[in-house]
Amino acid sequence: MPPPSEFTLDLRRRARIGLDETVFCAGKSSAQIAAIVARFDRAGASALLTRLDPDKIEALPAAMRARLDYDAGSHTAIFGKPRRRPGRATGRVAVVSAGTSDQRVAREAARTLEYYGVGATEIADVGVAGLWRLIDRIDVIRRHRVVIVVAGMDAALPSVVGGLVSGVVIAVPTSVGYGVAAGGATALNAALASCAPGVTVVNIDNGYGAACAALRILGGARAT
Amino acid sequence: MPPPSEFTLDLRRRARIGLDETVFCAGKSSAQIAAIVARFDRAGASALLTRLDPDKIEALPAAMRARLDYDAGSHTAIFGKPRRRPGRATGRVAVVSAGTSDQRVAREAARTLEYYGVGATEIADVGVAGLWRLIDRIDVIRRHRVVIVVAGMDAALPSVVGGLVSGVVIAVPTSVGYGVAAGGATALNAALASCAPGVTVVNIDNGYGAACAALRILGGARAT
Amino acid sequence: MPPPSEFTLDLRRRARIGLDETVFCAGKSSAQIAAIVARFDRAGASALLTRLDPDKIEALPAAMRARLDYDAGSHTAIFGKPRRRPGRATGRVAVVSAGTSDQRVAREAARTLEYYGVGATEIADVGVAGLWRLIDRIDVIRRHRVVIVVAGMDAALPSVVGGLVSGVVIAVPTSVGYGVAAGGATALNAALASCAPGVTVVNIDNGYGAACAALRILGGARAT
Amino acid sequence: MPPPSEFTLDLRRRARIGLDETVFCAGKSSAQIAAIVARFDRAGASALLTRLDPDKIEALPAAMRARLDYDAGSHTAIFGKPRRRPGRATGRVAVVSAGTSDQRVAREAARTLEYYGVGATEIADVGVAGLWRLIDRIDVIRRHRVVIVVAGMDAALPSVVGGLVSGVVIAVPTSVGYGVAAGGATALNAALASCAPGVTVVNIDNGYGAACAALRILGGARAT
Amino acid sequence: MPPPSEFTLDLRRRARIGLDETVFCAGKSSAQIAAIVARFDRAGASALLTRLDPDKIEALPAAMRARLDYDAGSHTAIFGKPRRRPGRATGRVAVVSAGTSDQRVAREAARTLEYYGVGATEIADVGVAGLWRLIDRIDVIRRHRVVIVVAGMDAALPSVVGGLVSGVVIAVPTSVGYGVAAGGATALNAALASCAPGVTVVNIDNGYGAACAALRILGGARAT
Amino acid sequence: MPPPSEFTLDLRRRARIGLDETVFCAGKSSAQIAAIVARFDRAGASALLTRLDPDKIEALPAAMRARLDYDAGSHTAIFGKPRRRPGRATGRVAVVSAGTSDQRVAREAARTLEYYGVGATEIADVGVAGLWRLIDRIDVIRRHRVVIVVAGMDAALPSVVGGLVSGVVIAVPTSVGYGVAAGGATALNAALASCAPGVTVVNIDNGYGAACAALRILGGARAT
Amino acid sequence: MPPPSEFTLDLRRRARIGLDETVFCAGKSSAQIAAIVARFDRAGASALLTRLDPDKIEALPAAMRARLDYDAGSHTAIFGKPRRRPGRATGRVAVVSAGTSDQRVAREAARTLEYYGVGATEIADVGVAGLWRLIDRIDVIRRHRVVIVVAGMDAALPSVVGGLVSGVVIAVPTSVGYGVAAGGATALNAALASCAPGVTVVNIDNGYGAACAALRILGGARAT
Amino acid sequence: MPPPSEFTLDLRRRARIGLDETVFCAGKSSAQIAAIVARFDRAGASALLTRLDPDKIEALPAAMRARLDYDAGSHTAIFGKPRRRPGRATGRVAVVSAGTSDQRVAREAARTLEYYGVGATEIADVGVAGLWRLIDRIDVIRRHRVVIVVAGMDAALPSVVGGLVSGVVIAVPTSVGYGVAAGGATALNAALASCAPGVTVVNIDNGYGAACAALRILGGARAT
Repeated sequence: MPPPSEFTLDLRRRARIGLDETVFCAGKSSAQIAAIVARFDRAGASALLTRLDPDKIEALPAAMRARLDYDAGSHTAIFGKPRRRPGRATGRVAVVSAGTSDQRVAREAARTLEYYGVGATEIADVGVAGLWRLIDRIDVIRRHRVVIVVAGMDAALPSVVGGLVSGVVIAVPTSVGYGVAAGGATALNAALASCAPGVTVVNIDNGYGAACAALRILGGARAT
Repeated sequence: MPPPSEFTLDLRRRARIGLDETVFCAGKSSAQIAAIVARFDRAGASALLTRLDPDKIEALPAAMRARLDYDAGSHTAIFGKPRRRPGRATGRVAVVSAGTSDQRVAREAARTLEYYGVGATEIADVGVAGLWRLIDRIDVIRRHRVVIVVAGMDAALPSVVGGLVSGVVIAVPTSVGYGVAAGGATALNAALASCAPGVTVVNIDNGYGAACAALRILGGARAT
Repeated sequence: MPPPSEFTLDLRRRARIGLDETVFCAGKSSAQIAAIVARFDRAGASALLTRLDPDKIEALPAAMRARLDYDAGSHTAIFGKPRRRPGRATGRVAVVSAGTSDQRVAREAARTLEYYGVGATEIADVGVAGLWRLIDRIDVIRRHRVVIVVAGMDAALPSVVGGLVSGVVIAVPTSVGYGVAAGGATALNAALASCAPGVTVVNIDNGYGAACAALRILGGARAT
Repeated sequence: MPPPSEFTLDLRRRARIGLDETVFCAGKSSAQIAAIVARFDRAGASALLTRLDPDKIEALPAAMRARLDYDAGSHTAIFGKPRRRPGRATGRVAVVSAGTSDQRVAREAARTLEYYGVGATEIADVGVAGLWRLIDRIDVIRRHRVVIVVAGMDAALPSVVGGLVSGVVIAVPTSVGYGVAAGGATALNAALASCAPGVTVVNIDNGYGAACAALRILGGARAT
Repeated sequence: MPPPSEFTLDLRRRARIGLDETVFCAGKSSAQIAAIVARFDRAGASALLTRLDPDKIEALPAAMRARLDYDAGSHTAIFGKPRRRPGRATGRVAVVSAGTSDQRVAREAARTLEYYGVGATEIADVGVAGLWRLIDRIDVIRRHRVVIVVAGMDAALPSVVGGLVSGVVIAVPTSVGYGVAAGGATALNAALASCAPGVTVVNIDNGYGAACAALRILGGARAT
Repeated sequence: MPPPSEFTLDLRRRARIGLDETVFCAGKSSAQIAAIVARFDRAGASALLTRLDPDKIEALPAAMRARLDYDAGSHTAIFGKPRRRPGRATGRVAVVSAGTSDQRVAREAARTLEYYGVGATEIADVGVAGLWRLIDRIDVIRRHRVVIVVAGMDAALPSVVGGLVSGVVIAVPTSVGYGVAAGGATALNAALASCAPGVTVVNIDNGYGAACAALRILGGARAT
Repeated sequence: MPPPSEFTLDLRRRARIGLDETVFCAGKSSAQIAAIVARFDRAGASALLTRLDPDKIEALPAAMRARLDYDAGSHTAIFGKPRRRPGRATGRVAVVSAGTSDQRVAREAARTLEYYGVGATEIADVGVAGLWRLIDRIDVIRRHRVVIVVAGMDAALPSVVGGLVSGVVIAVPTSVGYGVAAGGATALNAALASCAPGVTVVNIDNGYGAACAALRILGGARAT
Repeated sequence: MPPPSEFTLDLRRRARIGLDETVFCAGKSSAQIAAIVARFDRAGASALLTRLDPDKIEALPAAMRARLDYDAGSHTAIFGKPRRRPGRATGRVAVVSAGTSDQRVAREAARTLEYYGVGATEIADVGVAGLWRLIDRIDVIRRHRVVIVVAGMDAALPSVVGGLVSGVVIAVPTSVGYGVAAGGATALNAALASCAPGVTVVNIDNGYGAACAALRILGGARAT
């Protein structure tokens, strides 16, 4: 598909809600992505790109590629300078994930926070099938004001974490699994039906959205 | 609906698979139930009745009602003598449930076992939102060869139990909950997608079926 | 159904996560509710009851009924003293709802907050079909740290609000509507797919859960 | 798949309902498409082709390709002369779309109208997450008799537009999005459950169908 | 449920989009309906009420009931004077329905049009299983600018009508049927997937919405 | 996947139900198909192969390929001699299809009949959007004892045909379409909910199954 | 709901397809049913009524009730004389059902056949869980030209029967069961996915439709 | 995707529940798989790998490949020594499958058992459409304590087997089939709704899970 002849960046969004417009790359061609990034460049704006597959980034112009900070583990890229260096904000958000396959989504959340200058504590491989891995780290997790919990399949982790910590718990169901789990609907519904009170949920695989929710809670990019 | 003019009891079932035919009362009128019980009576057979609402039992003939051992907590009745008194078989099956609303189903499992002379250890209110209630009793649970786990909503309990015990774990999802949970489909799918290996599952609210599976595992009614 | 012979209150929950155990009354008989409330009474604890239909409350013992603060608009009751009087916490949470039929759920959220001493600003009838009703009040809404948005049918309201405020937005889809809307699945999915970044979602009709999430964000009952 | 040995063009359709038969190319091979176009050619008829992927058009015979007016942005091609040049009909239909990814569908609607000599006003990137983009253009939109609204994900745009204009509003849900949105079912259901009265809906991604509905409203090809 | 202590009529809606706010009575108690009608009365406004069950209208105060023009066939009531008497607008809308059970929905559409002074031609019992009933009347149907087609079960009627007339075709799927048809989802999806181009669709059983769409097409209440 | 080391042909099936075992090739590799055909060869049996993609047949050994009568329009192949030459059985089954894309399935039915010596009358492109195409041929269709109706999308054709002929009507829903139609579920449900009495239905795209049902009706292969 | 002021009987249907119009009573009031039967009476026509609940028939005028041949086991009534007495047609259709709860649907099929003068052999309680009950009777079943198989839950019976008989097999899935089975969708899909070739299926609980299909196979009412 | 920089093997799992952690290879790249196997190697542990496609194993380092015992029929590999040689445990588990396409899943179960030193009796091609194939072998099947039944499409086999044997029956629904069967949901639901009491079910295509359940029943790896 050719680049759109015309499009409108919502550059006022930062002023309005404290969050920048983000480039969601799934379903866009390299040519379209290049055109959009060029627009950000002309506006002197930095940008976060999500769902950017490795093969697409290789098809971008070399000069543009050189200016993108790409992270293969999360399929995200940061164009221009992040909005703020992690520093004083670090330590307020934990990103906890259940299995190896959930890590792309967990890292998408961490990278989004990083773009806004919030460092995240990443805790992986603590699925409830080996409960003691979680129990061993629960004191570390409790120290964070916001806990993003990333889990697929049966998504039992948000309920367990939600019953152990008093801070904010945001569940990110993932599309990991097969059969009844594939697509993430079971993980989504399990998280929404959580028996632990006050757990909130975002769309399947939406690590980016969970990070944005955390930023709203921490006071937005303005407050960090 | 009038009683069926004719029906066939599968009285050979016990010889074939070690389990009696059971009367599933949901959707049957009191008149139909009375006719079926009378047939068991004429055959000199005992019978287990499940899903028998309190208002239906009150509409049965008084003489028949007097011969039914009804349990209001599980909506089950036993006609005639149970197949064997609980005794040596006790202690081999635990029925673990997550919340108060799951108890009707948990008791249906226990009563079915009782009908076959297998006593069950019932452990209630150990949902993972208050994880320590489960941890406090896990050593007791571990002593049982078969653990039936009854849970609705997000059904996180089978995964957690499945990761803590080496015995057999049979999950019974329940229709407890509302919104995405109502009907039990989320609990069912979460149990099937369990991250703990070797958990098996029966139909929603099917405490009876889980008990039958336990009986097959213990060697059937013949072996107890 | 008879009251359960035995059940366990999770009275340690407040210490653990800052929230009390709540009595979800849907699916419970008046006899069961009375037994549970009596247990709270013996423990000297106050309690919030949700989904308590008017006909059930009338079937409770008169003495117990006299000690329940029942709100017919939200189907909630408070037994004993609320945990704290609304006061300094007032003004930090707005509960915004789309239509008349969404008000039961919106009020459930407000009453839950009230139980924990957090006063909420309730803003009703601002569905996007008459957009100016929302625009007229957006400055008031913006002053709140947490905005709970209650909407059924197409649930367009969370997206619109999420694009206008920088604070926390928690969407509560409702089961209001018919045809494709009935049951709330469309509202739920629309809220999860919101084009406004950082909107989080709870289960259908779960005003209670949204309030609990707000309490976690505000620092829990301990912090208010 | 080989070209069908025999097929029947519905050349009487124009006389009957004022609309030509259209070639829906998805699922057809280049060979099949070429055979069908050749049939239109022999009948001296012009034709609109939709869902024609760029790789398929390159596989067509060069001579045929030269006679097709292909639009890569909408994946449509016009064979022969459009039925009428845009002119007096221009300005009566607006095609409004929410996001960049919705543009292929929006353009399919505009091209279909163009084939019948109706010029459309295209207004893109006015999703409700940045509401002011829509408010800025609502007076322009209001001047059109028919407004086709193209939106995926949560499809909040048709409700908002339907509450702001008195003209005809036709919603085209799109398959844009992921997780709960993927496939377009959420956008479809949200549009059908719209709280704005009198919004009608066509199938997911069916820009062509929305344009045909607009043509029926404007009086068909006969009336333009 | 008690009447809401406060609610806001959208009395500006007529000026904005040419349609009045309507009272959807399903899910509202007689007390709530009475309170809302009283509000319309105080504002000197007329109102259309839909989904008003016979037993609810009997529970309204006698004085109010006397001022309601109730139609038992459509479960609608008109309070105050309709906006305009049917007259010059008559004959521009046909309401065509497939079976006896679809008539409540068809009449809801006709009554909504009547409220706005548009008389409708009602043609019933022309389901495609007896095709000649439709063929016999197709010339009458063709004379109308807008054809509302009401059908449940397999909803084949909109496709057949859409292939026979050049005017506007609005399909209203109904919840008539059982098994795979129950709830109307099959009728809805069949109408959306119609092989006749340019058929638009509204929510299941939404005769009111189809009539509103017709009013938008005819130029709104202002234009009639 | 390697050919299975061992498999069992159900060569007694013909004696039992009058139908041969058929090779369903979807999901099987060319190597597996070759091994299975070789087994039929060794048993001296003929065989029908369905869902055999063109690329798979090209990967078969040349000698085997030469003995397969492949039909690219239906993706079927006949190995060995058909069971009987079409002749006296011809004219008893009509295969009627709605659109060009339904023809692969329609031809699968016709080829299956041909394998059993039953010639079919194929009537294509008679979808109800151009109703007169069907009316023009209905007298021809009526002469057949069994009418197989193949249609996707909204599948209105089986209802219309079922209301016009007194013979047997077997509906084959197809996966043709997109959006709500894709996958064929809407066509399937519409056919099952048909308002014409006595229409039966087979699985989506199952032209083979419809032909087998016709053979059972005609008296099986034994009777032809 | 009041009786419709006007409705059209399709009295020509018998001439066209050999089947009478039937009165489907679910969702109709006793007043509506009475009005429709009176119309048949005035036309001198007999009629079959299905889904007629016992409480509805008691609300009919006594004189009309006296002329209805009501069968409580199938919820059907025959008004006037059946079309033909069972006689020579007897023995050509078997109605085989799996469990006690499937009998209402099985009897609906048998009564529909009876209305057209076709006697059916009813064989009940042969669900596959006790396979030998079926094996014992398979020779009887094999003697029938058409076998209607009625089964709910997992609907394994149509596959087993379809693999054992060479005659026509029509599956009627029923809504019997709970959890994943409730509503009959699992039984429906299992029947459609049957591994036995040439099994056809009708809508859930549609005993009437299966009988109509059998009548088409046997040559319609004209041929019996 | 690059290998995860860090991951945690749950090497304590064997001690806790008697089962090793297993490498589920679907969705993992060859690089990731190689990194994980290397970790097992460094820990001196053996490992079972499932869902390992042939093309992925060819992309592994040759030295590693040489140490993997790969089985192309089940897509499993065993790294290091199996935990015990099959021997005394042989003969206690039967793996029964319905069709050729179910064999990959059946073999996955058998290989998992083999890894733990339990030999399985594999019985293939006994789908109920040719019932006598099953009856011929039922005495062999009955001799096993645990019967794993693998079936797709309508999954009638678990019900039939469950009614014939008194041992444990574990159903594994498979994704074999098309149309309503595709994905395995119909097979899953049919197995859960089985009319034979005490059948338990695992996730679609989960041969591994069924074997783990069998190991729990036999007493775990510790007991063999």
